[in-house]
Amino acid sequence: MHESLLARIAGPRDLRGLPFPDLNRLAAEIRGLIVSTVSKNGGHLASNLGVVELTLAIHRVFESPEDKIVWDVGHQCYTHKLLTGRYKEFGSLRKIDGLAGFPKRSESIHDVFDTGHASTAISAALGLLAGERLSGRPNRVAAVIGDGALTGGMAYEALSHAGQLGLPLIVILNDNKMSIGPNVGGISKYLSRLSMKARYQSFRRTFDGLVKRIPLIGPGVFDIVVRLKRAVKAVFYTDNFFVDLGFEYVGPIDGHNLGLLEEVFQDVRRLDRPVVVHVITRKGKGCDFAEEDPSSYHGVSGNLEEAQDSKKLKLAKTSAGLGAAPVSGRPTFTDAFGKALLEAGARDPRIMAVTAAMEKGTGLSPFKQAYPKRFFDVGIAEEHAVTFAAGLAAQGLRPVAAIYSTFIQRAVDQVIHDTALQRLPVVFALDRAGFVSDDGETHQGLFDIGLFRPIPNMTILAPASGGELRRMLDWALTEPRPTMIRYPKGLCPPEIGGFSQPLVPGRGVFVREWESNLCLAFTGSLYPEVWAGADRLLEANIPADLYNLRFLKPVDEQYLAEILNRYDLVVFIEEGMLEGGFGEYAAELGARKRCTAQVYALGVSGDYLAQGKREELLRANGLDGEGIARSIRRMYAENRILAYPARHRPPAG
Amino acid sequence: MHESLLARIAGPRDLRGLPFPDLNRLAAEIRGLIVSTVSKNGGHLASNLGVVELTLAIHRVFESPEDKIVWDVGHQCYTHKLLTGRYKEFGSLRKIDGLAGFPKRSESIHDVFDTGHASTAISAALGLLAGERLSGRPNRVAAVIGDGALTGGMAYEALSHAGQLGLPLIVILNDNKMSIGPNVGGISKYLSRLSMKARYQSFRRTFDGLVKRIPLIGPGVFDIVVRLKRAVKAVFYTDNFFVDLGFEYVGPIDGHNLGLLEEVFQDVRRLDRPVVVHVITRKGKGCDFAEEDPSSYHGVSGNLEEAQDSKKLKLAKTSAGLGAAPVSGRPTFTDAFGKALLEAGARDPRIMAVTAAMEKGTGLSPFKQAYPKRFFDVGIAEEHAVTFAAGLAAQGLRPVAAIYSTFIQRAVDQVIHDTALQRLPVVFALDRAGFVSDDGETHQGLFDIGLFRPIPNMTILAPASGGELRRMLDWALTEPRPTMIRYPKGLCPPEIGGFSQPLVPGRGVFVREWESNLCLAFTGSLYPEVWAGADRLLEANIPADLYNLRFLKPVDEQYLAEILNRYDLVVFIEEGMLEGGFGEYAAELGARKRCTAQVYALGVSGDYLAQGKREELLRANGLDGEGIARSIRRMYAENRILAYPARHRPPAG
Repeated sequence: MHESLLARIAGPRDLRGLPFPDLNRLAAEIRGLIVSTVSKNGGHLASNLGVVELTLAIHRVFESPEDKIVWDVGHQCYTHKLLTGRYKEFGSLRKIDGLAGFPKRSESIHDVFDTGHASTAISAALGLLAGERLSGRPNRVAAVIGDGALTGGMAYEALSHAGQLGLPLIVILNDNKMSIGPNVGGISKYLSRLSMKARYQSFRRTFDGLVKRIPLIGPGVFDIVVRLKRAVKAVFYTDNFFVDLGFEYVGPIDGHNLGLLEEVFQDVRRLDRPVVVHVITRKGKGCDFAEEDPSSYHGVSGNLEEAQDSKKLKLAKTSAGLGAAPVSGRPTFTDAFGKALLEAGARDPRIMAVTAAMEKGTGLSPFKQAYPKRFFDVGIAEEHAVTFAAGLAAQGLRPVAAIYSTFIQRAVDQVIHDTALQRLPVVFALDRAGFVSDDGETHQGLFDIGLFRPIPNMTILAPASGGELRRMLDWALTEPRPTMIRYPKGLCPPEIGGFSQPLVPGRGVFVREWESNLCLAFTGSLYPEVWAGADRLLEANIPADLYNLRFLKPVDEQYLAEILNRYDLVVFIEEGMLEGGFGEYAAELGARKRCTAQVYALGVSGDYLAQGKREELLRANGLDGEGIARSIRRMYAENRILAYPARHRPPAG
Repeated sequence: MHESLLARIAGPRDLRGLPFPDLNRLAAEIRGLIVSTVSKNGGHLASNLGVVELTLAIHRVFESPEDKIVWDVGHQCYTHKLLTGRYKEFGSLRKIDGLAGFPKRSESIHDVFDTGHASTAISAALGLLAGERLSGRPNRVAAVIGDGALTGGMAYEALSHAGQLGLPLIVILNDNKMSIGPNVGGISKYLSRLSMKARYQSFRRTFDGLVKRIPLIGPGVFDIVVRLKRAVKAVFYTDNFFVDLGFEYVGPIDGHNLGLLEEVFQDVRRLDRPVVVHVITRKGKGCDFAEEDPSSYHGVSGNLEEAQDSKKLKLAKTSAGLGAAPVSGRPTFTDAFGKALLEAGARDPRIMAVTAAMEKGTGLSPFKQAYPKRFFDVGIAEEHAVTFAAGLAAQGLRPVAAIYSTFIQRAVDQVIHDTALQRLPVVFALDRAGFVSDDGETHQGLFDIGLFRPIPNMTILAPASGGELRRMLDWALTEPRPTMIRYPKGLCPPEIGGFSQPLVPGRGVFVREWESNLCLAFTGSLYPEVWAGADRLLEANIPADLYNLRFLKPVDEQYLAEILNRYDLVVFIEEGMLEGGFGEYAAELGARKRCTAQVYALGVSGDYLAQGKREELLRANGLDGEGIARSIRRMYAENRILAYPARHRPPAG
């Protein structure tokens, strides 16, 4: 049965002839396929189940690819993918070399703009629309954006510009109430008030009809009528943000009523002005369709965090769950951070937590529960989050801003201009630094080292274990300057002695010191891979000392130069881009101080593979144990002048 | 006479006892001092003249430093500085080692948060206020923000969060209409409508008084009254954005009426909810006070560009003027860009220009005049500007986003996520890359190389002359990927043969090639300084070849490695941070390819001097001719093994 309808839809055109009963069957089939695929591959469940009818209506009314649809965040694009010729490949969703979990221009002409981070769609759609018109084409452009993404300031910038341009941009506000809660900003309260007024719609229609029948016998009367209309409108619609910005506003309308949706879209398609269509959807709508194995599917929490963290709503069946103890019994770095912060918060009432719709994803929930007044979730608004934290710091408090590495890219200037230049002691906890599973290139945490190493007054730390993370957090919370702590989305390795050594500013720590003449110096997240690589090198008779860098900035240059003089070869291995990375810095230091060691850098280059499990991506980029060992064996082979190091011997003493 | 009043004001406290007639005299005195100082030192004139009464009222009502005032952008802080103990140093405004042109925590306890870039004040003030309350202090916090800065999305993020928190934040909206024009977004239209309703104020007050007298005999009647109030309000106030977000709203009020301002501030100071006080000011108010030499003072254009570019309103007497031919007859890089883009636009109708309130500052005015439909100024909204441009590019158009280096920091993720990862061919014209005169550390363009070198698919170019800039722009406009062109705020050097050589991707060009064994490789903006340095080295019998890098990314590594093998010493000199810079990369390349040259990097380190003329800052950072020569002489002296190069000989052939 599942094949019957979807298999016949090669593209949106095939959708338009279907009668309504078939559409309902199709919607059910789509929900079933999304549930079964997400249960196997992970991904977004609730948000995709919520937009099935909305997507069907969009593709029946708008003529993609001529008409263009931009999906904000893009995690809700599964139905769109199924309706635009990707039904057969859908089983590969989010897998390496498979369909991406987000729109991808490289994947289909129906994906007109890549998304992944929130709040970009209105800007992109406005650009696309301006481009259509400037190219003399009459096609329509619509942006589909959730209420959560509307907390991002960029969406507001775009609305403001669109209102001014007056082009017929169609903004479909997918209001699934996920942002209604105590911590998500004025805009969500406002949307909630707006939709409560839906029941007055019919009244207004009657009134408008009446007013239209008043003969306009002169400007005086006209003015009275206009004022009267406004007055009545005001009783029910005192405040409409979108109208303020120059948009027409339609809604709120039921996002699961296909007939109504199509009718409205047909109407707005003919408008010559920008319009917001406010659609109310229910996240996880029709989830009980998954009747085959209902116990596997967790209830769906209404939270805008999903928009920020595509992994959050993975089904319990396939996921260790964030914040929960994984199967191995080892905590994640996220867990370790959350626990360390909770304990630090108990010792020092000045410690505050700030995040941008990543409460659970960054492990802040225990802190929030313990210290609700010291916890701030500002919504999807990284820029504000950082400067707000800087304001707290300027008051002598000790804010910790927990933000994924990929999302701190949204607040680079706030880190520079509002934090670092003023030396305000904000601690940035950068979760998901390095490769991130499944979500593809938009969610990789590969840029933070390069982005923040040039910033004055900044300290950047990279723990290798949960214990080291705790030590670094405690240290950072006493520093008079900003600090970043970057750690991966992964399990903490077992603690070893090296991790518990006290922090010495600017210095790393040897976790294996055999007085070899090869040293592998690494960013903390790669400790397991470097260790595995060193084991393989030992099999090839190449023993290596292992140096955990800890401080990526600042660096005790005298100390590092000694290392660069002690060894014949020092290989710097980092989970981040090579360009702007620590390895380049170390090479420059070695040249400047005329150190004797040969220096090499391993890291990620520009053409990194985008999508897969973290382990797969490390392997594909030569940063797993085998890849590291292979690269180093090649260095030995290619540089005949470099002597093999002395045979492994146990540490002296 | 000038000294009489200001000299007696050691701090805001001294202000509070003054009678109104003295205040008016004080305001006049302040205006006179601002005009005379700006006429000598440059700086912001109109915006500061516009807020004299506003600042006086603020400091008479709020008790700084206990109460805290955050100045958005901060360019309007001169009166604030004069009233908070900095009268005697005011003559050093914007000079090296002098008073900064922006608030500086390091300068006074009355400067509670450093600003410089727009739209940060509400976030910072909210953080300060939350900090006050969490620390158990009852003081007030106010943010003073212009209507221009309100186009920045971050301000909206902060308003939204503040509305939700409900803390008694005071947002003083300084609406000087500078953003009312065809190109500045829906919000400005909205503010304009709002203030037009001021004349209905008295009516509303009467009505409210009437309504208050209606006895509330039951919920039914109450409901009717509430609806009636809303209805009447709607006739005059159909739309209030701030109320939507959870703020109280007061205004619009006359920002030059001291008595009224004080009265309103006294009122809002007692509120226990967030409030927006909408104040209408006139930029340049009282400018004719400068009667001593009125012909020297140019009229002030109403434009939100001033908020982005503090140099824009420099007086004609002291400034070469942007876009105008300077005294020397040599064009600026800005002029060269504007002209080249205009001509490219004539050849190719797909070329579009996008900026974020930097039309004149980036030299786009001629393009706008010639092709108004292909020009987009989105307001102070860099994030949107970049993604909007990416949307245009996705339509096959060729957008050029002209944004200062310091402001592209606001849109790093949009460059990564919306442009580079999708390989969309946006050309970024980064004006004011490198050191920028007078504005201090917040406005330096020192980070762009480090921020964007790690980004995949990106090309970064650094022209040394106007001709080279044109060549690079023309080349970039045919590339299928994004390109950045970074150039300084300064005059173009005279063209020489090397600049006209065709671009070869990944390669630079020798502008002096004497087969010396020393090579100075530089980013284009430093060509005059490097040339001067080479001349000094020649006096010390050290001839140097000069290599203009042109491509900072990507690099033809084989070609660069050959250079690193041809010379004994290659010094990389760049106008940007050392960390993450080209020099580090070159050192890594040299190590990786085992090149024979000694590699050194010269650039800017973390403790760069902040404020001064570009020439002063280059000198202070060792990047003027003498500094470069000194560093290289020291390299020779310190590395005894390095032989002096052979004597200068003219190029062969």
